[in-house]
Amino acid sequence: MKKILLVGASGTLGSAVAQHLRQQHQVITASRSDPLHSVDLGSDDSVSALLQAVGPLDAIVATTGSVHFGPLTEMSPAQFAQGLQDKLLGQVRLALLGQQHLRDGGSITLTTGILTEQPIAQGVSASSVNAAIEGFVRAAALELPRGLRINAVSPSVLSEALDAYGDFFPGFEPVSAARAALAYQRSIDGIANGQVFKVW
Amino acid sequence: MKKILLVGASGTLGSAVAQHLRQQHQVITASRSDPLHSVDLGSDDSVSALLQAVGPLDAIVATTGSVHFGPLTEMSPAQFAQGLQDKLLGQVRLALLGQQHLRDGGSITLTTGILTEQPIAQGVSASSVNAAIEGFVRAAALELPRGLRINAVSPSVLSEALDAYGDFFPGFEPVSAARAALAYQRSIDGIANGQVFKVW
Ligand SMILES: NC(=O)c1ccc[n+]([C@@H]2O[C@H](COP(=O)([O-])OP(=O)(O)OC[C@H]3O[C@@H](n4cnc5c(N)ncnc54)[C@H](OP(=O)(O)O)[C@@H]3O)[C@@H](O)[C@H]2O)c1
Ligand SMILES: NC(=O)c1ccc[n+]([C@@H]2O[C@H](COP(=O)([O-])OP(=O)(O)OC[C@H]3O[C@@H](n4cnc5c(N)ncnc54)[C@H](OP(=O)(O)O)[C@@H]3O)[C@@H](O)[C@H]2O)c1
Repeated sequence: MKKILLVGASGTLGSAVAQHLRQQHQVITASRSDPLHSVDLGSDDSVSALLQAVGPLDAIVATTGSVHFGPLTEMSPAQFAQGLQDKLLGQVRLALLGQQHLRDGGSITLTTGILTEQPIAQGVSASSVNAAIEGFVRAAALELPRGLRINAVSPSVLSEALDAYGDFFPGFEPVSAARAALAYQRSIDGIANGQVFKVW
Repeated sequence: MKKILLVGASGTLGSAVAQHLRQQHQVITASRSDPLHSVDLGSDDSVSALLQAVGPLDAIVATTGSVHFGPLTEMSPAQFAQGLQDKLLGQVRLALLGQQHLRDGGSITLTTGILTEQPIAQGVSASSVNAAIEGFVRAAALELPRGLRINAVSPSVLSEALDAYGDFFPGFEPVSAARAALAYQRSIDGIANGQVFKVW
């Protein structure tokens, strides 16, 4: 049984990941509105306080992050920057600060998405942010000490999110959040390092 | 003869690009310290003012951007964020604001680097930022109207920069800035869209 911190556990994806991982592990759920473990990935202090509070971990998972969706021709630099601060820097902050709180052999698993490789209209910020997280994972994997590992999970649009996002993904085959959750287990309980697990 | 705006024209890479492109085109050079066309890619207002001043363009090129180099285990979120603001958002800002100032069929060419795909120690921020720019390019290429195009050039370490960066790139084959400059011409005068021209 591993001790896992899951930030974003209340979300569409995160709740399925929590449910799946709980079958074999201790899962500490966290998010801004979590009653027990409130954390804002936008703040170093907030993340450090959470990491101190929960103690040494075997795995850290992020299923968080939003980006601006909108036409390229109308996108402002400030709109583009939202995803850099939120999805990209938020997850990277958790990884950078979290690495010191992992036990030897522990793992970090971040979340990207299919738009890295298969762009959609209005999704230029998502494509860029996801690619940045995957680039971070590829490079960080080679530098992490003590047998630590890092991977990313890249789901297609989730069946559970089709009502909200379906129109952005014409003809894309949705995947269930439960299926995506398997990839997080694979990252945590396997030996992969620097991989992007594509769930599509 | 095309009218090209080259931001970063005074740099190691940019000066070679300027020299090469001038053989066939009108090149407007710009950077923070350019006597005629001073611009700071960190500021919307500065970029907009430059674009207004120079008028309609056939091509926009960026050879700018710095990132923090340092060990992953010691990297702070603030250090990681430097490259997001500087190399990533700076180039994206030029692309987003510049697209409206391009004539039909015009092009944008951004600069990444070999670290997207081939990480080095202490280079996690560069790998992430370069990947983000390449993700932006892949997605933006599919949304640009009016026959506009966008590509990235990804050089290996430059021969001219070996004194400064050589120790970071053990065994990497350097390329001359003049050789890298060819790829910018290829982006501007060819028909490629959404491509990453690897100069290695
Ligand atoms: N939904 C899809 O179809 C889909 C497909 C592929 C990839 N993804 C990616 O998967 C991730 C999660 O998506 P989702 O649809 O599950 O999102 P979601 O339902 O909005 O859930 C987001 C989760 O993150 C938490 N959160 C948000 N901002 C936070 C912050 N600053 N600090 C800490 N926690 C924060 C939220 O809780 P609080 O509000 O309480 O903080 C919530 O638990 C995103 O990166 C998304 O791009 C989603
Ligand atoms: N050197 C290499 O071996 C190498 C290899 C692969 C990729 N690259 C990439 O190529 C790009 C250029 O590298 P380089 O070595 O040529 O850098 P460099 O010699 O430091 O030149 C940078 C250029 O950008 C300008 N600049 C910097 N910040 C700016 C800002 N905020 N706004 C406008 N202009 C700005 C500089 O002029 P001012 O100071 O006057 O603004 C200068 O003209 C970078 O993205 C780098 O990562 C370099």
